[in-house]
Amino acid sequence: MNKRKQVIVVGAGFGGLRVVQKLCKQPVEITLIDKTNHHLFQPLLYQVATAALAPSDIAVPARAIFKRNKNVHVRMGEVVDVDTDKKKIHLENGQSLPFDYLILAPGTRHSYFGNDSWEKFAPGLKTLSDALDIRERILMSFEKAEREPDPEKRKHHETFVVVGGGPTGVEVAGTIAEISARTMRKDYEHVDLDLLEIILVEGQSRILNTYHESLSEKAARDLEQMGVKVMRNSMVTDVNEEGVRVKVTGDASGNGQSSDSKEVFIKTGTVIWGAGNAASPLLETLKVPLEKDGRLRVDADLSVPGHPDIFVIGDAARQVNPNGRETPAIAPGAIQHGDHAVRVIRADMAGKERPAFEYFDKGSMATIGRARAIAQIRNWRFSGFFAWLLWSLVHIFFLIGFRNRFRVMAEWFWFYLTFRGGSRLITRKRMKPEPALQDQE
Amino acid sequence: MNKRKQVIVVGAGFGGLRVVQKLCKQPVEITLIDKTNHHLFQPLLYQVATAALAPSDIAVPARAIFKRNKNVHVRMGEVVDVDTDKKKIHLENGQSLPFDYLILAPGTRHSYFGNDSWEKFAPGLKTLSDALDIRERILMSFEKAEREPDPEKRKHHETFVVVGGGPTGVEVAGTIAEISARTMRKDYEHVDLDLLEIILVEGQSRILNTYHESLSEKAARDLEQMGVKVMRNSMVTDVNEEGVRVKVTGDASGNGQSSDSKEVFIKTGTVIWGAGNAASPLLETLKVPLEKDGRLRVDADLSVPGHPDIFVIGDAARQVNPNGRETPAIAPGAIQHGDHAVRVIRADMAGKERPAFEYFDKGSMATIGRARAIAQIRNWRFSGFFAWLLWSLVHIFFLIGFRNRFRVMAEWFWFYLTFRGGSRLITRKRMKPEPALQDQE
Repeated sequence: MNKRKQVIVVGAGFGGLRVVQKLCKQPVEITLIDKTNHHLFQPLLYQVATAALAPSDIAVPARAIFKRNKNVHVRMGEVVDVDTDKKKIHLENGQSLPFDYLILAPGTRHSYFGNDSWEKFAPGLKTLSDALDIRERILMSFEKAEREPDPEKRKHHETFVVVGGGPTGVEVAGTIAEISARTMRKDYEHVDLDLLEIILVEGQSRILNTYHESLSEKAARDLEQMGVKVMRNSMVTDVNEEGVRVKVTGDASGNGQSSDSKEVFIKTGTVIWGAGNAASPLLETLKVPLEKDGRLRVDADLSVPGHPDIFVIGDAARQVNPNGRETPAIAPGAIQHGDHAVRVIRADMAGKERPAFEYFDKGSMATIGRARAIAQIRNWRFSGFFAWLLWSLVHIFFLIGFRNRFRVMAEWFWFYLTFRGGSRLITRKRMKPEPALQDQE
Repeated sequence: MNKRKQVIVVGAGFGGLRVVQKLCKQPVEITLIDKTNHHLFQPLLYQVATAALAPSDIAVPARAIFKRNKNVHVRMGEVVDVDTDKKKIHLENGQSLPFDYLILAPGTRHSYFGNDSWEKFAPGLKTLSDALDIRERILMSFEKAEREPDPEKRKHHETFVVVGGGPTGVEVAGTIAEISARTMRKDYEHVDLDLLEIILVEGQSRILNTYHESLSEKAARDLEQMGVKVMRNSMVTDVNEEGVRVKVTGDASGNGQSSDSKEVFIKTGTVIWGAGNAASPLLETLKVPLEKDGRLRVDADLSVPGHPDIFVIGDAARQVNPNGRETPAIAPGAIQHGDHAVRVIRADMAGKERPAFEYFDKGSMATIGRARAIAQIRNWRFSGFFAWLLWSLVHIFFLIGFRNRFRVMAEWFWFYLTFRGGSRLITRKRMKPEPALQDQE
């Protein structure tokens, strides 16, 4: 009897999870390793950050998913090194595990373009922990504004800057605008909605730039209608505890008036970072050349050049077809990568030739707010309520596990009817002395 | 026209919330101040700590409760001083607020009997933040046990010590036993249930000592059946990162065998503290004599001796009737205190004499596990499934807000049917290098 092949999957995101789900029916032993203990439905993470959903609505423990699969071993841990010669991975606790196949799906982190000190003031949104941190910052800003007698300082607490006009930035900015205008107005008596300012800062000339220009325009108009100021052609040059410095090098308002290059400083207590992506540093340990953004350009079968038994899938991989088309860094891309890696391993086991990966474009969607979204499916483009409805249905459908699906649906239905955010709890922070605030008698 | 009376309520627990709910119909201005932004249904907090419920199931933002009451002002903040002469309170940010009536409902914290350094290793369970911390410690212990090859070290991770045999300690120990035996057995392949040890350490000769002796016995037997080792007459003398030192000064097992005084050291990675209560240090700023445990002995009308316009209610108050009976430190006690403080203020406003407080004993209940609880209502005592059903109904009924009530009920129903814990997410911790673990090749 042959010894069963050992497959190690690193990362329990969409790609990694898919590999395990498909491969666990084969006669292999699979070890799934993740830094956290859960699979996260990342497309809805902004809803946790903006207090509409609870963490358990969009996450499910990886162990719970595979508890009936005896050949799947779940391990919480961090892979710190890949030994490509000995075919072993090393964990942060000094343990090591051998593999026959290794599938790396470590995803990306936001990039601060070399200014890692900004992270402290401008957290990114990739994990549940990030989302809870951002949620508490937003809620604490309102609490601080509520008790601040000085209108100028209050404005500081009522200014929110979101950096990066990709899907995450747009969703966060839109949701802050919505909860400010509706829920918060009822809850807070001193928060002054005239002072409220939500600014979305985008380095390029348009937001959501993977979409058709007409949809970018529509999304920007929607945001402006909801009270979000969209700053285009605007690069962040500094972030500190006082606020954000932005360099504008063109038409910022998008109304055709090209302005000279100028710098502005936005005073704010809350900055949320959604710009730039950098692949996990884990890829560096493979000791093969990487792209500028840290991603690894994979071969046609998604394997690492020179290492046919190691695959990189999902956002961390750069996959380019001979015709020049690339897999986009979205969930369907990662899932299709996962399917393909399984297909390749099965071809190996059957002694067949490895197939080449081909991305199938099912379209993409971004939501802006309640009943506002954009969608493009090849040459078909639409926006507004119908796009939003489609977005909602697709996202609920793909949420893993019946229970979460039921719960999120009930939650949304309730939220839609009542506009009461369900999870507006500040659980980790308390009011601490702020020496900057003056004694007011 | 008279200026409206200014009432300040400190603490949004059961007592403080009740005062605001009852008093807001009177022509007064009320400011409710709490260190957090929410009212917490504390009797179910252990369910968040043991991953059965999500934080938003048992907490509701104070602002949301009073958003329609124009004369109620909610403020997140910490009161650091009470100026009884000028009738002002001072907040941690230097602001101060004047009052005509002040109702202090600051509750209690667990007491480490002067050994505050133990808190780091043995967190208490009073706030949502505490509960999330304890939840992550419990889940991380299982994760560590899962990947620990050395059985002796694995046992270290599979030992849970709960200090204090009051309702919180009993509930936590019982729930850890349940989730270990059922859910965790399915989720973890290397966690060895033979190594699992859950120890409840109680300083007195019996647990749940505010209940009749027969119920204490029943609860202890239930716990032992569920796999919890109950150590009686056992005082904790040290807590450090290695474990807990316990001094046994009598019959620890409760089987009548009196043992000599001895010290044992329990190696464990997870200690949960549920022993001792100390009133909030805020009471010290009143500069009146306090009880040994920091509580303030109130006058018959619940006011502070010498300060008829300042009331202390809830757990922080020691209220003794002329017949010697005291209000117990449970939610119904705090609620009745709240009702009475409102009654006194209304009597003042009507120019009538202040009534004296009388505690009405509606009985008390403690739950041990699924379908196991004890209840005593005056001389009526019962236990088992019926007590548990009563406990469930009462607790669901009193949960504030329809939505939470509905959600908790659905959650429990689901949990009862399927035994899947819903919220087993580790959101804040990641695996970090542990130099103590040896390299294992």
